[in-house]
Amino acid sequence: MKIGIYGYGNLGKGVECACKNSKDMELVVIFTRRNPSSLKPLTPNVVVASVDDAMNYQDKIDVLILCGGSATDLPNQTPLLASKFDVVDSFDTHANIPAHFDNVDKQAKLGNKIAVISCGWDPGLFSIARVYSEAILGTGSTYTFWGRGVSQGHSDAIRRIDGVIDARQYTVPIDTSLELVREGQEPELTTRQKHLRECYVVAEDGADLKRIEKEIVEMPNYFADYNTTVKFISEEEMKTNHSTLPHGGLVMHSGHTGWNEENTHLIEFKLKLDSNPEFTGAVLVAVARAISKMKSRGEVGAKTILDIPPAFFSDMSSEELRSKLL
Amino acid sequence: MKIGIYGYGNLGKGVECACKNSKDMELVVIFTRRNPSSLKPLTPNVVVASVDDAMNYQDKIDVLILCGGSATDLPNQTPLLASKFDVVDSFDTHANIPAHFDNVDKQAKLGNKIAVISCGWDPGLFSIARVYSEAILGTGSTYTFWGRGVSQGHSDAIRRIDGVIDARQYTVPIDTSLELVREGQEPELTTRQKHLRECYVVAEDGADLKRIEKEIVEMPNYFADYNTTVKFISEEEMKTNHSTLPHGGLVMHSGHTGWNEENTHLIEFKLKLDSNPEFTGAVLVAVARAISKMKSRGEVGAKTILDIPPAFFSDMSSEELRSKLL
Repeated sequence: MKIGIYGYGNLGKGVECACKNSKDMELVVIFTRRNPSSLKPLTPNVVVASVDDAMNYQDKIDVLILCGGSATDLPNQTPLLASKFDVVDSFDTHANIPAHFDNVDKQAKLGNKIAVISCGWDPGLFSIARVYSEAILGTGSTYTFWGRGVSQGHSDAIRRIDGVIDARQYTVPIDTSLELVREGQEPELTTRQKHLRECYVVAEDGADLKRIEKEIVEMPNYFADYNTTVKFISEEEMKTNHSTLPHGGLVMHSGHTGWNEENTHLIEFKLKLDSNPEFTGAVLVAVARAISKMKSRGEVGAKTILDIPPAFFSDMSSEELRSKLL
Repeated sequence: MKIGIYGYGNLGKGVECACKNSKDMELVVIFTRRNPSSLKPLTPNVVVASVDDAMNYQDKIDVLILCGGSATDLPNQTPLLASKFDVVDSFDTHANIPAHFDNVDKQAKLGNKIAVISCGWDPGLFSIARVYSEAILGTGSTYTFWGRGVSQGHSDAIRRIDGVIDARQYTVPIDTSLELVREGQEPELTTRQKHLRECYVVAEDGADLKRIEKEIVEMPNYFADYNTTVKFISEEEMKTNHSTLPHGGLVMHSGHTGWNEENTHLIEFKLKLDSNPEFTGAVLVAVARAISKMKSRGEVGAKTILDIPPAFFSDMSSEELRSKLL
């Protein structure tokens, strides 16, 4: 399959690596809003083109993987491109998914294309775990925990504070709460009981550290509802110990069976990721593979990962899957 | 949806309970090879009928859930019934799945019906976890561990030994091996390194316990390749501590991303089940729900759980799923 990447940040690079690691994928073109000659892709001889020239590549690629951000890029880019290309995106602003889906669906149908939105691990693989769990065990409670991992939104929020040079924020699930869920107790957990927030901050020389710490821990929406720790470190320590983007988390569902619901079951789906953008990129490439199978069934319009049979993600035939993995 | 159960053992009872716990399901009839009047179902007023009368119920049920065993029942029953009913089975002899699929597919297509074979948790949910993992992280290693849980086949094998009154065998995954996998070391594990087998045996008065233990631990295929412990207990202790059928296990995939595959990721899917047959029954009922959505798309023939989109298992609409669980 011939793949195009639209946007070459961390996620775009993750998709590039996933194409290299997939025998059935060929990265053909990277589109950028920057000056194309300023980009240094890892893939030898790949074309780098301006986003303005994208329409010239309609016949040259099978799936265009959109690697922009959910705040301002994807709400515009996905509908715009969905009538011209089969596309995948990783739109992850949960509250706006229904509106995004409708916008994209209209355009994809106009162009007879498929657009799979909101792919990755949450939304994405975690959504799949939630749906199977609740469909099988209708009674019970579902929990999603994130981390230990870097939240880029929270790191950015700290960087905007006066006197802060750099910051990294880790979201950490609280072990004692995980254990209550694992024991089948179905606890009601507050925001504060589910996660804590660990912040590593590089401050300017002579900055008022007490004030910075207070501004962080009291910041509404981002930190006020959590137990938050703040540690000031040097630029060197930031570079040495906090330069990667690990993440992960768990979906747990505790539910019941039996005539009087007397038996308890625990379903747990867990990810531990060295690199959030590279893993997300690998999911997007698997979705691109699924799109080719959906097309051969004549499907069009907007879809989510919940609409795709597991077999479609694999490069094995149905016969191979039944004999090797079922 | 109107459900029929074909075979009323532990699994049939599990399906019965899952119907009770699903708002959208109604159990209409239980078919049995025994004298129908000898059955005492839990569901008030449900019809109990002889398997010989099943064809009279073709218009009265939407999906027939086959609850026989994989050794001798399902290889005959599923093809026989698949041309007359939409059916689900839990055929779990991995090596024979391709042949079973072909037999069932022919009959289902003759009757314009859908037959979903090999549903449950392994094959079933574990298969789904294996397929997603390998499709997303093509490099790496997949591991399946079962237990801690009762293996009915191994328990039966012990019961056939001279001097044994009753037996229960637990399959136990070996923690140190799990940890090697979790650390991303991708170890090569022998059969002996993956699981151990714990046996609880009630022997006849005066039986030669040394001989029984030796016959167990040296039994080819079942025990010889494992570290096996044997503990002799009283009938009372068997009844008090070993009368339930818990099970579970994990699928773990450790794989890589990055230009030089320098980053490691761990995907882990874990089940801890109080009752193996009741959980399996709950999966079969969710598959029955999916069949109604597959029918409305005009699908026919044999399928597996890998061919079904996650959304189809849920009683929520696509819109609800996108706003609540995606």
